[in-house]
Amino acid sequence: MTMHVSSSEIIAAIKSRVSTNLYDPSRTLTRTQIEDLVALATRAPSAYNLQNWRFVAVSSAEGKARLQAASFGQAKVGDAAVTFILVGKLPSHEGLAARLQPSVDAGYMPQSVADGWVEAVAGSYGGDALKSRDEAVRSATFAAAFLVFAAHARGLASGAMVGFEPERVSREFGLAADEIPVMLMTVGYAAPGNWPQKPRVPAGEVIAHA
Amino acid sequence: MTMHVSSSEIIAAIKSRVSTNLYDPSRTLTRTQIEDLVALATRAPSAYNLQNWRFVAVSSAEGKARLQAASFGQAKVGDAAVTFILVGKLPSHEGLAARLQPSVDAGYMPQSVADGWVEAVAGSYGGDALKSRDEAVRSATFAAAFLVFAAHARGLASGAMVGFEPERVSREFGLAADEIPVMLMTVGYAAPGNWPQKPRVPAGEVIAHA
Repeated sequence: MTMHVSSSEIIAAIKSRVSTNLYDPSRTLTRTQIEDLVALATRAPSAYNLQNWRFVAVSSAEGKARLQAASFGQAKVGDAAVTFILVGKLPSHEGLAARLQPSVDAGYMPQSVADGWVEAVAGSYGGDALKSRDEAVRSATFAAAFLVFAAHARGLASGAMVGFEPERVSREFGLAADEIPVMLMTVGYAAPGNWPQKPRVPAGEVIAHA
Repeated sequence: MTMHVSSSEIIAAIKSRVSTNLYDPSRTLTRTQIEDLVALATRAPSAYNLQNWRFVAVSSAEGKARLQAASFGQAKVGDAAVTFILVGKLPSHEGLAARLQPSVDAGYMPQSVADGWVEAVAGSYGGDALKSRDEAVRSATFAAAFLVFAAHARGLASGAMVGFEPERVSREFGLAADEIPVMLMTVGYAAPGNWPQKPRVPAGEVIAHA
Protein backbone atom coordinates (compact mmCIF):
# COMPACT_ATOMS: atom_id res chain seq x y z
CA MET A 1 0.00 0.00 0.00
CA THR A 2 1.26 3.47 -0.74
CA MET A 3 -1.20 5.56 1.23
CA HIS A 4 0.32 8.21 3.44
CA VAL A 5 -0.73 8.02 7.07
CA SER A 6 0.85 10.98 8.86
CA SER A 7 3.72 8.99 10.36
CA SER A 8 1.73 7.42 13.15
CA GLU A 9 3.58 4.23 12.31
CA ILE A 10 7.02 5.63 13.13
CA ILE A 11 5.74 7.07 16.40
CA ALA A 12 4.12 3.74 17.24
CA ALA A 13 7.40 1.95 16.54
CA ILE A 14 9.31 4.34 18.82
CA LYS A 15 6.79 3.90 21.61
CA SER A 16 6.38 0.13 21.38
CA ARG A 17 9.89 -1.11 20.57
CA VAL A 18 11.55 -3.21 23.26
CA SER A 19 14.98 -4.74 23.72
CA THR A 20 13.89 -8.30 23.10
CA ASN A 21 15.25 -10.97 25.38
CA LEU A 22 13.16 -14.01 24.42
CA TYR A 23 13.13 -15.33 20.85
CA ASP A 24 11.43 -18.23 19.11
CA PRO A 25 14.43 -20.48 18.36
CA SER A 26 12.53 -22.38 15.66
CA ARG A 27 12.26 -19.44 13.28
CA THR A 28 15.12 -18.46 11.00
CA LEU A 29 15.87 -15.76 8.44
CA THR A 30 17.19 -16.26 4.92
CA ARG A 31 20.39 -14.64 3.71
CA THR A 32 18.25 -12.41 1.51
CA GLN A 33 16.31 -11.21 4.54
CA ILE A 34 19.53 -10.63 6.47
CA GLU A 35 21.09 -8.66 3.62
CA ASP A 36 17.93 -6.57 3.26
CA LEU A 37 18.28 -5.57 6.92
CA VAL A 38 21.94 -4.68 6.44
CA ALA A 39 21.18 -2.66 3.31
CA LEU A 40 18.65 -0.62 5.31
CA ALA A 41 21.09 -0.20 8.23
CA THR A 42 23.69 1.28 5.88
CA ARG A 43 21.24 4.10 5.10
CA ALA A 44 22.24 5.57 8.48
CA PRO A 45 24.24 8.79 8.37
CA SER A 46 27.98 8.82 8.96
CA ALA A 47 30.44 11.70 9.20
CA TYR A 48 31.77 12.68 5.76
CA ASN A 49 29.78 9.73 4.40
CA LEU A 50 32.55 7.49 5.75
CA GLN A 51 30.22 4.48 6.02
CA ASN A 52 32.82 3.19 8.46
CA TRP A 53 30.98 0.07 9.50
CA ARG A 54 30.81 -3.65 8.83
CA PHE A 55 28.25 -6.28 9.83
CA VAL A 56 29.02 -9.84 10.86
CA ALA A 57 25.75 -11.77 10.66
CA VAL A 58 25.97 -14.74 12.98
CA SER A 59 23.22 -17.21 12.14
CA SER A 60 24.85 -20.63 11.85
CA ALA A 61 24.75 -23.03 14.80
CA GLU A 62 28.53 -23.03 14.92
CA GLY A 63 28.82 -19.26 14.76
CA LYS A 64 26.13 -18.80 17.41
CA ALA A 65 27.94 -21.17 19.75
CA ARG A 66 31.17 -19.19 19.42
CA LEU A 67 29.42 -15.83 19.88
CA GLN A 68 27.41 -17.10 22.81
CA ALA A 69 30.61 -18.25 24.50
CA ALA A 70 31.98 -14.72 24.03
CA SER A 71 28.85 -13.10 25.44
CA PHE A 72 28.60 -14.75 28.85
CA GLY A 73 26.44 -17.60 27.53
CA GLN A 74 23.37 -15.43 26.99
CA ALA A 75 20.58 -17.59 25.60
CA LYS A 76 19.22 -14.98 23.18
CA VAL A 77 22.35 -15.25 21.02
CA GLY A 78 21.46 -18.88 20.46
CA ASP A 79 17.71 -18.34 20.13
CA ALA A 80 17.55 -15.27 17.85
CA ALA A 81 17.54 -15.97 14.13
CA VAL A 82 20.65 -13.86 13.73
CA THR A 83 22.92 -11.78 15.92
CA PHE A 84 24.79 -8.99 14.18
CA ILE A 85 28.20 -7.90 15.36
CA LEU A 86 28.10 -4.16 14.66
CA VAL A 87 31.64 -3.32 13.71
CA GLY A 88 32.88 0.28 13.67
CA LYS A 89 35.96 1.11 11.66
CA LEU A 90 38.49 3.79 12.60
CA PRO A 91 38.08 6.59 10.03
CA SER A 92 40.46 6.53 7.09
CA HIS A 93 40.58 8.75 4.02
CA GLU A 94 41.61 5.75 1.96
CA GLY A 95 38.77 4.72 -0.28
CA LEU A 96 36.69 7.78 0.64
CA ALA A 97 37.22 9.50 -2.72
CA ALA A 98 35.85 6.41 -4.48
CA ARG A 99 32.89 6.31 -2.07
CA LEU A 100 32.02 9.95 -2.80
CA GLN A 101 32.52 9.65 -6.56
CA PRO A 102 28.91 8.54 -7.28
CA SER A 103 27.68 11.75 -5.58
CA VAL A 104 30.06 13.79 -7.72
CA ASP A 105 29.05 11.91 -10.86
CA ALA A 106 25.38 12.43 -10.04
CA GLY A 107 26.06 16.13 -10.27
CA TYR A 108 25.10 17.37 -6.85
CA MET A 109 28.40 17.18 -4.93
CA PRO A 110 31.05 19.48 -6.40
CA GLN A 111 34.44 17.81 -6.88
CA SER A 112 35.94 20.47 -4.60
CA VAL A 113 33.66 19.37 -1.73
CA ALA A 114 34.60 15.71 -2.19
CA ASP A 115 38.29 16.67 -2.23
CA GLY A 116 37.76 18.79 0.87
CA TRP A 117 36.12 15.94 2.77
CA VAL A 118 38.98 13.56 1.94
CA GLU A 119 41.43 16.18 3.16
CA ALA A 120 39.38 16.83 6.31
CA VAL A 121 39.28 13.14 7.22
CA ALA A 122 42.99 12.74 6.57
CA GLY A 123 43.74 15.77 8.72
CA SER A 124 41.27 15.54 11.55
CA TYR A 125 41.48 11.92 12.69
CA GLY A 126 45.06 11.03 11.82
CA GLY A 127 46.72 11.62 15.14
CA ASP A 128 43.75 11.39 17.47
CA ALA A 129 43.01 7.87 18.69
CA LEU A 130 40.10 8.87 20.93
CA LYS A 131 38.39 10.96 18.25
CA SER A 132 38.82 8.08 15.81
CA ARG A 133 37.35 5.60 18.26
CA ASP A 134 34.40 7.90 19.01
CA GLU A 135 33.66 8.09 15.29
CA ALA A 136 33.71 4.31 14.95
CA VAL A 137 31.34 3.96 17.91
CA ARG A 138 29.02 6.68 16.59
CA SER A 139 28.76 5.25 13.08
CA ALA A 140 28.20 1.67 14.20
CA THR A 141 25.61 2.80 16.77
CA PHE A 142 23.75 4.87 14.19
CA ALA A 143 23.70 1.80 11.94
CA ALA A 144 22.48 -0.28 14.89
CA ALA A 145 19.58 2.10 15.48
CA PHE A 146 18.60 2.00 11.82
CA LEU A 147 18.73 -1.80 12.07
CA VAL A 148 16.25 -1.62 14.97
CA PHE A 149 13.78 0.33 12.80
CA ALA A 150 14.41 -1.84 9.75
CA ALA A 151 13.73 -4.98 11.78
CA HIS A 152 10.56 -3.46 13.21
CA ALA A 153 9.37 -2.57 9.72
CA ARG A 154 9.94 -6.16 8.62
CA GLY A 155 7.93 -7.52 11.55
CA LEU A 156 10.97 -8.63 13.49
CA ALA A 157 12.09 -8.10 17.06
CA SER A 158 15.55 -6.84 17.98
CA GLY A 159 17.72 -6.25 21.00
CA ALA A 160 20.97 -4.33 21.45
CA MET A 161 23.60 -5.97 23.67
CA VAL A 162 26.81 -4.67 25.19
CA GLY A 163 27.39 -7.71 27.39
CA PHE A 164 30.21 -9.45 25.51
CA GLU A 165 34.00 -9.76 25.60
CA PRO A 166 35.25 -7.40 22.87
CA GLU A 167 38.73 -8.90 22.46
CA ARG A 168 37.31 -12.40 22.22
CA VAL A 169 34.67 -11.36 19.67
CA SER A 170 37.36 -9.61 17.61
CA ARG A 171 39.55 -12.70 17.67
CA GLU A 172 36.82 -15.27 17.05
CA PHE A 173 35.31 -13.39 14.12
CA GLY A 174 38.48 -12.07 12.52
CA LEU A 175 38.06 -8.35 13.05
CA ALA A 176 40.91 -6.23 11.69
CA ALA A 177 43.15 -4.02 13.82
CA ASP A 178 41.17 -0.91 12.81
CA GLU A 179 37.80 -2.51 13.65
CA ILE A 180 35.91 -2.24 16.95
CA PRO A 181 33.04 -4.56 17.94
CA VAL A 182 30.74 -1.75 19.11
CA MET A 183 27.60 -3.71 19.90
CA LEU A 184 25.72 -6.94 19.29
CA MET A 185 22.18 -6.84 17.93
CA THR A 186 19.91 -9.86 18.10
CA VAL A 187 17.14 -10.02 15.46
CA GLY A 188 14.41 -12.59 15.05
CA TYR A 189 10.90 -13.54 16.04
CA ALA A 190 9.87 -12.69 19.60
CA ALA A 191 8.64 -15.45 21.90
CA PRO A 192 5.95 -14.71 24.49
CA GLY A 193 7.05 -13.22 27.81
CA ASN A 194 9.19 -10.25 26.85
CA TRP A 195 9.03 -7.22 29.11
CA PRO A 196 7.24 -4.10 27.91
CA GLN A 197 9.25 -0.96 27.22
CA LYS A 198 10.70 0.30 30.49
CA PRO A 199 9.50 3.67 31.80
CA ARG A 200 11.57 6.70 30.88
CA VAL A 201 12.60 9.72 32.90
CA PRO A 202 10.26 12.57 31.88
CA ALA A 203 11.69 14.69 29.05
CA GLY A 204 11.52 17.80 31.20
CA GLU A 205 14.16 16.33 33.48
CA VAL A 206 16.72 15.69 30.76
CA ILE A 207 16.31 18.83 28.66
CA ALA A 208 17.87 22.25 29.02
CA HIS A 209 16.96 25.19 26.80
CA ALA A 210 19.51 27.68 25.52
CA MET B 1 -5.62 7.69 10.84
CA THR B 2 -5.06 4.36 12.51
CA MET B 3 -4.91 2.03 9.51
CA HIS B 4 -1.97 -0.34 9.45
CA VAL B 5 0.09 -0.17 6.26
CA SER B 6 2.74 -2.86 6.56
CA SER B 7 5.54 -0.54 7.65
CA SER B 8 6.14 0.96 4.25
CA GLU B 9 6.39 4.27 6.04
CA ILE B 10 9.42 3.29 8.13
CA ILE B 11 11.17 1.87 5.08
CA ALA B 12 10.36 5.05 3.15
CA ALA B 13 11.82 7.14 5.98
CA ILE B 14 15.01 5.08 6.00
CA LYS B 15 15.40 5.39 2.25
CA SER B 16 14.54 9.07 1.92
CA ARG B 17 16.11 10.65 5.01
CA VAL B 18 18.99 13.02 4.37
CA SER B 19 21.42 14.93 6.56
CA THR B 20 19.87 18.32 5.99
CA ASN B 21 22.18 21.23 5.36
CA LEU B 22 19.77 23.98 4.28
CA TYR B 23 16.93 25.11 6.57
CA ASP B 24 14.20 27.73 6.33
CA PRO B 25 15.38 30.24 8.96
CA SER B 26 11.92 31.80 9.24
CA ARG B 27 10.29 28.71 10.76
CA THR B 28 10.57 27.95 14.44
CA LEU B 29 9.45 25.23 16.85
CA THR B 30 7.63 25.70 20.14
CA ARG B 31 9.00 24.38 23.42
CA THR B 32 6.20 21.84 23.38
CA GLN B 33 7.31 20.59 19.98
CA ILE B 34 10.94 20.44 21.12
CA GLU B 35 10.05 18.52 24.28
CA ASP B 36 7.91 16.08 22.26
CA LEU B 37 10.99 15.31 20.14
CA VAL B 38 13.13 14.78 23.23
CA ALA B 39 10.53 12.54 24.84
CA LEU B 40 10.57 10.35 21.72
CA ALA B 41 14.38 10.33 21.62
CA THR B 42 14.50 9.02 25.19
CA ARG B 43 12.61 5.93 24.00
CA ALA B 44 15.94 4.74 22.58
CA PRO B 45 17.52 1.74 24.30
CA SER B 46 20.41 2.14 26.72
CA ALA B 47 22.54 -0.43 28.51
CA TYR B 48 20.95 -1.43 31.85
CA ASN B 49 18.31 1.23 31.11
CA LEU B 50 20.89 3.80 32.18
CA GLN B 51 19.24 6.56 30.14
CA ASN B 52 22.63 8.23 30.38
CA TRP B 53 21.86 11.20 28.15
CA ARG B 54 20.86 14.83 28.30
CA PHE B 55 19.63 17.21 25.61
CA VAL B 56 20.52 20.88 25.33
CA ALA B 57 18.02 22.43 22.93
CA VAL B 58 19.57 25.53 21.40
CA SER B 59 16.88 27.64 19.78
CA SER B 60 17.36 31.21 21.05
CA ALA B 61 19.24 33.72 18.89
CA GLU B 62 21.81 34.13 21.63
CA GLY B 63 22.29 30.39 22.13
CA LYS B 64 22.54 29.79 18.38
CA ALA B 65 25.23 32.45 18.06
CA ARG B 66 27.32 30.80 20.78
CA LEU B 67 26.87 27.32 19.35
CA GLN B 68 27.60 28.50 15.82
CA ALA B 69 30.84 30.07 17.03
CA ALA B 70 31.78 26.70 18.54
CA SER B 71 30.94 24.80 15.33
CA PHE B 72 33.13 26.57 12.81
CA GLY B 73 30.43 29.11 11.96
CA GLN B 74 28.25 26.62 10.12
CA ALA B 75 25.14 28.40 8.86
CA LYS B 76 22.74 25.55 9.58
CA VAL B 77 23.14 26.05 13.34
CA GLY B 78 21.74 29.52 12.87
CA ASP B 79 19.10 28.57 10.32
CA ALA B 80 17.62 25.39 11.85
CA ALA B 81 14.75 25.90 14.29
CA VAL B 82 16.74 24.11 16.99
CA THR B 83 20.08 22.40 17.32
CA PHE B 84 20.31 19.75 20.01
CA ILE B 85 23.55 19.08 21.81
CA LEU B 86 23.37 15.32 22.38
CA VAL B 87 25.07 14.81 25.69
CA GLY B 88 26.25 11.38 26.81
CA LYS B 89 26.85 10.77 30.51
CA LEU B 90 29.51 8.45 31.89
CA PRO B 91 27.64 5.49 33.42
CA SER B 92 26.98 5.67 37.15
CA HIS B 93 25.03 3.31 39.36
CA GLU B 94 23.85 6.31 41.38
CA GLY B 95 20.20 6.91 40.69
CA LEU B 96 19.85 3.71 38.68
CA ALA B 97 17.87 1.90 41.39
CA ALA B 98 15.33 4.73 41.38
CA ARG B 99 15.17 4.63 37.58
CA LEU B 100 14.44 0.89 37.60
CA GLN B 101 11.92 1.07 40.45
CA PRO B 102 8.91 1.75 38.18
CA SER B 103 9.69 -1.49 36.30
CA VAL B 104 9.87 -3.37 39.59
CA ASP B 105 6.67 -1.74 40.84
CA ALA B 106 4.92 -2.62 37.58
CA GLY B 107 5.61 -6.24 38.41
CA TYR B 108 7.63 -7.43 35.47
CA MET B 109 11.21 -6.78 36.65
CA PRO B 110 12.11 -8.86 39.71
CA GLN B 111 13.81 -6.86 42.46
CA SER B 112 16.78 -9.25 42.19
CA VAL B 113 17.31 -8.25 38.54
CA ALA B 114 17.19 -4.55 39.39
CA ASP B 115 19.69 -5.10 42.20
CA GLY B 116 21.88 -7.12 39.84
CA TRP B 117 21.92 -4.36 37.23
CA VAL B 118 22.92 -1.75 39.79
CA GLU B 119 25.73 -4.03 40.94
CA ALA B 120 26.80 -4.73 37.35
CA VAL B 121 27.01 -1.04 36.49
CA ALA B 122 28.94 -0.27 39.66
CA GLY B 123 31.35 -3.09 38.92
CA SER B 124 31.81 -3.00 35.19
CA TYR B 125 32.42 0.68 34.43
CA GLY B 126 34.03 1.88 37.64
CA GLY B 127 37.65 1.66 36.71
CA ASP B 128 37.43 1.68 32.93
CA ALA B 129 37.48 5.16 31.41
CA LEU B 130 37.33 3.98 27.80
CA LYS B 131 34.43 1.58 28.40
CA SER B 132 32.58 4.36 30.21
CA ARG B 133 33.18 6.80 27.37
CA ASP B 134 32.05 4.24 24.77
CA GLU B 135 28.79 3.80 26.70
CA ALA B 136 28.19 7.54 26.79
CA VAL B 137 28.79 7.77 23.02
CA ARG B 138 26.58 4.76 22.32
CA SER B 139 23.63 5.98 24.39
CA ALA B 140 23.72 9.53 23.03
CA THR B 141 24.05 8.25 19.46
CA PHE B 142 21.12 5.88 19.89
CA ALA B 143 19.08 8.82 21.20
CA ALA B 144 20.25 10.90 18.23
CA ALA B 145 19.06 8.25 15.79
CA PHE B 146 15.66 8.08 17.49
CA LEU B 147 15.53 11.86 17.24
CA VAL B 148 16.07 11.55 13.47
CA PHE B 149 13.06 9.25 13.17
CA ALA B 150 10.95 11.34 15.56
CA ALA B 151 11.69 14.48 13.54
CA HIS B 152 10.83 12.70 10.31
CA ALA B 153 7.54 11.50 11.77
CA ARG B 154 6.71 15.08 12.76
CA GLY B 155 7.41 16.37 9.24
CA LEU B 156 10.75 17.88 10.19
CA ALA B 157 14.21 17.64 8.66
CA SER B 158 17.31 16.82 10.69
CA GLY B 159 21.05 16.59 10.34
CA ALA B 160 23.72 15.06 12.56
CA MET B 161 26.92 17.09 12.95
CA VAL B 162 30.31 16.21 14.39
CA GLY B 163 32.00 19.39 13.23
CA PHE B 164 32.28 21.32 16.48
CA GLU B 165 34.79 22.05 19.25
CA PRO B 166 33.84 19.72 22.10
CA GLU B 167 35.64 21.55 24.90
CA ARG B 168 34.17 24.86 23.83
CA VAL B 169 30.65 23.43 23.61
CA SER B 170 31.07 21.88 27.08
CA ARG B 171 32.24 25.19 28.51
CA GLU B 172 29.69 27.41 26.76
CA PHE B 173 26.72 25.25 27.68
CA GLY B 174 27.74 24.19 31.16
CA LEU B 175 28.27 20.47 30.68
CA ALA B 176 29.35 18.62 33.81
CA ALA B 177 32.66 16.76 34.17
CA ASP B 178 30.92 13.42 33.52
CA GLU B 179 29.17 14.67 30.36
CA ILE B 180 30.41 14.37 26.77
CA PRO B 181 29.02 16.41 23.87
CA VAL B 182 28.68 13.44 21.51
CA MET B 183 26.99 15.07 18.56
CA LEU B 184 24.95 18.05 17.40
CA MET B 185 21.62 17.52 15.67
CA THR B 186 19.93 20.28 13.72
CA VAL B 187 16.13 20.01 13.41
CA GLY B 188 13.77 22.26 11.51
CA TYR B 189 12.07 22.86 8.18
CA ALA B 190 14.15 22.08 5.10
CA ALA B 191 14.76 24.80 2.53
CA PRO B 192 15.00 23.90 -1.17
CA GLY B 193 18.34 22.71 -2.50
CA ASN B 194 19.38 19.94 -0.10
CA TRP B 195 21.28 17.03 -1.58
CA PRO B 196 19.53 13.67 -1.97
CA GLN B 197 20.68 10.73 0.14
CA LYS B 198 24.20 9.79 -0.90
CA PRO B 199 24.74 6.38 -2.50
CA ARG B 200 25.75 3.54 -0.21
CA VAL B 201 28.26 0.76 -0.62
CA PRO B 202 26.26 -2.39 -1.56
CA ALA B 203 25.32 -4.47 1.49
CA GLY B 204 27.14 -7.48 0.08
CA GLU B 205 30.43 -5.62 0.47
CA VAL B 206 30.01 -4.82 4.17
CA ILE B 207 28.51 -8.09 5.41
CA ALA B 208 30.17 -11.30 6.50
CA HIS B 209 28.22 -14.41 7.43
CA ALA B 210 29.21 -16.68 10.30
